[in-house]
Amino acid sequence: MTERSVAHATIHLERVYDAAPARVFAAFSDPAASDRWFVAAEGWEMTEYDHDFREGGRETGRFAVKKGDPVIYNQTHYHQIVPDQRIVYAYTMAQEDTLMSASMLTLEFKAEGGKTRLLLTEQGAFLDGVDQPANREAGWSELLDSLGREVRGELVGA
Amino acid sequence: MTERSVAHATIHLERVYDAAPARVFAAFSDPAASDRWFVAAEGWEMTEYDHDFREGGRETGRFAVKKGDPVIYNQTHYHQIVPDQRIVYAYTMAQEDTLMSASMLTLEFKAEGGKTRLLLTEQGAFLDGVDQPANREAGWSELLDSLGREVRGELVGA
Repeated sequence: MTERSVAHATIHLERVYDAAPARVFAAFSDPAASDRWFVAAEGWEMTEYDHDFREGGRETGRFAVKKGDPVIYNQTHYHQIVPDQRIVYAYTMAQEDTLMSASMLTLEFKAEGGKTRLLLTEQGAFLDGVDQPANREAGWSELLDSLGREVRGELVGA
Repeated sequence: MTERSVAHATIHLERVYDAAPARVFAAFSDPAASDRWFVAAEGWEMTEYDHDFREGGRETGRFAVKKGDPVIYNQTHYHQIVPDQRIVYAYTMAQEDTLMSASMLTLEFKAEGGKTRLLLTEQGAFLDGVDQPANREAGWSELLDSLGREVRGELVGA
């Protein structure tokens, strides 16, 4: 019998982007924008990603962090989308047939003058020690940097 | 524009049942047992519940805490089921069309001699102040008492 363990963790990240909430939100809602900063994150080998950005929508993706690494399988299920304000979704990450984590993800877009404060909260169950909360936090941190480049228009045409 | 808020909370509950893990797990996997302790929890008015206990399975339920109360809509999506050891699922609670919470739920069944220590962890995002983590914790506490009655065979034929 496999030894089973669960590490529960809450990850909070916060960034301020120099753009209105509608602009930052569009980086999630527009598939082409999402492809630039999220799907094609620097150095990742994405083999497949299906967009379905709507309440009740389900997305699947397959990728490797770098070429030759094990293939990671991602599934997302959108619970709530409030335009320019909030996105709530559940997602899982698996390596081959092994479920690594199951998480609830909340994104809150707060207008601050002409800027946007983005609050990201992941509430994750990390299973059997295959992946660690610290890795996940580092991954999100890189992605939010990439989102900043998207919001500044640096990824257009990339 | 509605004022939006999110309260993130992690709820931990722990119980020891005087039965082997297989017996406690069966109270979740067997629809008739689940109907007794979970669906027909004392005083609740259940109008509908569809069982679909399998990885990838989705269950929906509609109920009111008591007659005349607003109807609550529950959706469950099973991410992982390890027989006699672990259940991981995502679930949401809505009141009419208003999403109240989106959660990740982990149940861990630990053998202790002939007994079972059950660890329940809910990682929830409670939306716009419609429901509170303390209510959820109290609800689970009552349900785990009801599970105890089921495991002791007190609910059979009820």
